[in-house]
Amino acid sequence: MSAGNQPLEHKRIEEGLQLAPRFDADGLITCVTTDARSGDVLMVAHMNSEALEKTIASGEAWYYSRSRKKLWRKGESSGHLQRVVEMRVDCDQDAVWIKVEQQGAGACHTGRRSCFYRAVPLRGEGAVRLEFRDAEQTFDPEKIYNDKA
Amino acid sequence: MSAGNQPLEHKRIEEGLQLAPRFDADGLITCVTTDARSGDVLMVAHMNSEALEKTIASGEAWYYSRSRKKLWRKGESSGHLQRVVEMRVDCDQDAVWIKVEQQGAGACHTGRRSCFYRAVPLRGEGAVRLEFRDAEQTFDPEKIYNDKA
Repeated sequence: MSAGNQPLEHKRIEEGLQLAPRFDADGLITCVTTDARSGDVLMVAHMNSEALEKTIASGEAWYYSRSRKKLWRKGESSGHLQRVVEMRVDCDQDAVWIKVEQQGAGACHTGRRSCFYRAVPLRGEGAVRLEFRDAEQTFDPEKIYNDKA
Repeated sequence: MSAGNQPLEHKRIEEGLQLAPRFDADGLITCVTTDARSGDVLMVAHMNSEALEKTIASGEAWYYSRSRKKLWRKGESSGHLQRVVEMRVDCDQDAVWIKVEQQGAGACHTGRRSCFYRAVPLRGEGAVRLEFRDAEQTFDPEKIYNDKA
């Protein structure tokens, strides 16, 4: 592609109807997963092309685990599947947003409903000290996972 | 850190009260920005340590632009600032979620309120064809930005 075509390429990605995901150097895009009912962000994870295809085809969330370096069907160990109600793609197609019905007790491997269970105080003075919020453990991860990621 | 300390290190990051952001090889963490009122995801962007510090100190959203390779105060060109109502950090501290009051017409450089203005149909057959959704342009980006990123 010549530099002169960049505006056209931008236009195609931003205003086109073709899904043209822009995977990063590791072959991944970012996925934000929210609770379809509450709107809360449950987790931020990654998808490779196979995870994206499987999610679109099945309507269930599949991710790619960077730590375990493998495709990962959400809930395969815990039973806490995510049924996708809607998927969106962002302007430059390097991120997707899925709204899900979270099955079971929660999305986070620490035993909480959401991975975002600590607040960062704003406009404070001195060192930042996190505050637990909506941090109740809804399941016991020790009982759910055989081995911890 | 020896391998034997990994569970302790996990515990500190996941259950501790210290903000210990795990920046990637480029010095960035992912930031998900939602509309504090509607709960919609407005954008997914990145923060370096300076952007994170400035956001925490000011209560306004600062990001790091990967394309422009610079710190970026959201709304500095458009006037569409984001006042942060709440910031959360996730279990492994490589992502933050901010709930914001979006000032002005929108967050997306294409002129929409959210960057996620196209839906990806699920469980379909054949090629995926995106569908515009909540895609009304709320401002004219040509009039707002002098140069397009």
